[in-house]
Amino acid sequence: MTIPRANSRQKRVVIVGAGFAGLTLAKKLSGKKFQVVLLDKNNYHQFQPLLYQVASCGLEPSSISFPLRKIFQRKKHIIIRVTDVLSVSPETNTVHTGVGAITYDYLVMAQGAVTNYFNNERLQLHAYSMKSVSEALLLRNTLLQNYEQALSAVVMEERLALLNVVIVGGGPTGVELAGAIAEMKRKILPKDYPELNFRNMHIYLLEAAPRLLNGMSAASGNTVLEYLTGLGVEVQANVSVTDYDGERVSLSNGNIIHSRCLIWAAGVKGKPIPGIPKEAVTANDRLLVNSFNQVNGLTDVYALGDIALMQLDNLPRGHPQVAPVAIQQATLLAKNLEHVVTGKTIIPFNYQDQGSMATVGRNLALVEIGKIKLKGFIAWLVWMLVHLMSIIGIKNRLFILINWVWQYITYDQSLRLIIKPAHKIKNDDNETNPVPVRTKPLTGL
Amino acid sequence: MTIPRANSRQKRVVIVGAGFAGLTLAKKLSGKKFQVVLLDKNNYHQFQPLLYQVASCGLEPSSISFPLRKIFQRKKHIIIRVTDVLSVSPETNTVHTGVGAITYDYLVMAQGAVTNYFNNERLQLHAYSMKSVSEALLLRNTLLQNYEQALSAVVMEERLALLNVVIVGGGPTGVELAGAIAEMKRKILPKDYPELNFRNMHIYLLEAAPRLLNGMSAASGNTVLEYLTGLGVEVQANVSVTDYDGERVSLSNGNIIHSRCLIWAAGVKGKPIPGIPKEAVTANDRLLVNSFNQVNGLTDVYALGDIALMQLDNLPRGHPQVAPVAIQQATLLAKNLEHVVTGKTIIPFNYQDQGSMATVGRNLALVEIGKIKLKGFIAWLVWMLVHLMSIIGIKNRLFILINWVWQYITYDQSLRLIIKPAHKIKNDDNETNPVPVRTKPLTGL
Repeated sequence: MTIPRANSRQKRVVIVGAGFAGLTLAKKLSGKKFQVVLLDKNNYHQFQPLLYQVASCGLEPSSISFPLRKIFQRKKHIIIRVTDVLSVSPETNTVHTGVGAITYDYLVMAQGAVTNYFNNERLQLHAYSMKSVSEALLLRNTLLQNYEQALSAVVMEERLALLNVVIVGGGPTGVELAGAIAEMKRKILPKDYPELNFRNMHIYLLEAAPRLLNGMSAASGNTVLEYLTGLGVEVQANVSVTDYDGERVSLSNGNIIHSRCLIWAAGVKGKPIPGIPKEAVTANDRLLVNSFNQVNGLTDVYALGDIALMQLDNLPRGHPQVAPVAIQQATLLAKNLEHVVTGKTIIPFNYQDQGSMATVGRNLALVEIGKIKLKGFIAWLVWMLVHLMSIIGIKNRLFILINWVWQYITYDQSLRLIIKPAHKIKNDDNETNPVPVRTKPLTGL
Repeated sequence: MTIPRANSRQKRVVIVGAGFAGLTLAKKLSGKKFQVVLLDKNNYHQFQPLLYQVASCGLEPSSISFPLRKIFQRKKHIIIRVTDVLSVSPETNTVHTGVGAITYDYLVMAQGAVTNYFNNERLQLHAYSMKSVSEALLLRNTLLQNYEQALSAVVMEERLALLNVVIVGGGPTGVELAGAIAEMKRKILPKDYPELNFRNMHIYLLEAAPRLLNGMSAASGNTVLEYLTGLGVEVQANVSVTDYDGERVSLSNGNIIHSRCLIWAAGVKGKPIPGIPKEAVTANDRLLVNSFNQVNGLTDVYALGDIALMQLDNLPRGHPQVAPVAIQQATLLAKNLEHVVTGKTIIPFNYQDQGSMATVGRNLALVEIGKIKLKGFIAWLVWMLVHLMSIIGIKNRLFILINWVWQYITYDQSLRLIIKPAHKIKNDDNETNPVPVRTKPLTGL
């Protein structure tokens, strides 16, 4: 398949990943000077900050996912390919993908971060993570299936393991997910499963550090702790998970928690594409970049957002791995690439911190913008407004708003559906059956 | 797990399937006299008439699926189990399920119909069907993935096979799906895939009978033919599919159509549970019932809706397999079961035909109610209103209405997302990759 460039002067920018960074860059690059090839393994951009609401039955995947081809309709200079990126050959300016080889004038790595299990393979095998819409859906299905299975669990210990939820990692993701599941436990699950006793369901939030929300102030950490405890979440600090076999969670303090659902939100790492020189890759698999986001030791190769590590004298550990950094770096790179082709001098990155926020549940949130600190209902409104306005698409905003208002009035996340696409082998058993076949008769039934 | 009956006089009704019939019966049975055990392999009721809009990116699965536990919240006499039904032992009034054995006083088979491939195994292996939300999602994902693959298809014949869609069966499902895909071809696909030439995309609707919509009048059949032809659908009557290998569709007239997407909407059959006496099972695997929906030769076992075949002198081939029949039979059975336990005489079924309708696309539909025949815009409005009011849940109605209005204004079905839940084996490659890995370099790129 031949895709000619608009003109010989047009430079080709290949972007790996359509997250906040990749999407922003693609939008801002001018079609006059650049042909953009956007590569992603999904055909949509996903809004990660709200993944936890998909997992907790509050939002549809489609509300926080947006089709790339719809975003770039009528943009002839933007070529989209839904594929994996296999490797890169910097010496020949070539990227090797699932749909073939692609040459570039400039390559931009914006594939984000992946879950970091710190090489604990048993953990990786059994734990659930939430870095994508697909994983959030798996988590939603698992939570619901566990309650269905609990109804048939004859052994009490098994039933408790099916009810308990363990969340590892006291950052915003862990806090927000713990709060959402706690609200399900209070308002929905006892109504849906009158046969189960949800006093037996425990929601644990484990944090290896001494407190929650290390990215925010100690005061905020304490407030969040209050909020979560009030919702019935059992928060444990200074505790880490040493082992998990899918049923028993072993803790560093020697305790054991029985749970079939351990959610790992305790760390991320980069996932460099094979072919990147080792000198540019950190211990955490991120890519070292200079203040122009150029990958160390490579010309014409840049990295943005979560995978990029820009070590500065005042920031030895780099910027926080959050959307605003990705978006600001992409915005600057769009400008800098224009400067490169026009021979102007390029500008170093300077992060404008827009503050941070986290929500725990209805009327419970925290916002820190510089010296301004908000909590409770006001913070919760700000949190919703900011997220709503960050979502792509008017219809998505409308649907999310209706869902939120609906939940606020009815105390009900209504999307409690275990839906999976059928498999290709066609027969009418291809519907997923959430509960395993048991032969024991059920006493009473 | 013990589920005691409210009192010794309470009879247990086990219902297999939470479709229109099963759901209606469960709702109408009184908790005073009956304990209801509702069995379904999904934890939701699905609104089948709108499956085709899920497949054609118009609606979310959640808009036409409703959680059973939400429907029956606070109904203590209704026990829900999400499981497969393995077999039945009428001699001991026992149903064997994936979660164990269940005894019954009355058993009601309401599992609906499954796709009938008429024992053509190659067809069953390669064709797509649309009898469930899961299958509709698979079809949506396949349609979108085929266009992504077409971008990388080097051989022209392969690219055409990826673009072409063949729909077999000129009933309402086939007609509605053909119309929806035709509208996608006209309004959306060329914008999403400017690199593809959609003049090369053909949508075939094949019908073995001489005309479309055999359930409706000849006039309606002709009108639908006009509508579809106007939308660019290539309708072929008196043609059947003799073979399909996943790429080449062989027709009874000797022609071959190249298509990677053949949708089979040409027939359904029953799927009786093992243990039902053979005398009660028809050649089409449906269950023979008397005018009280009692399965032939069995006491205390009933069948409702699509799986039931009630042969009457004036109806040797039984009632049409449509929702109104299922709902009316369930409503009557609820009353008759009350009569049985109270010793009153039971009432034979008498179908009230409420007419039939089908839609092809915006402003294009057909409605037949007795002598009244509507078409065009008016019929389209009636069709939407009737379906909207049949949907469970105010929020679902609201979301569907917004989606429809949105599509009407923007000419855009916006749910063009290839989303699948992740697999359990955790690593960040577990996101589905829609395009197969190719090694050939892409000329030009």
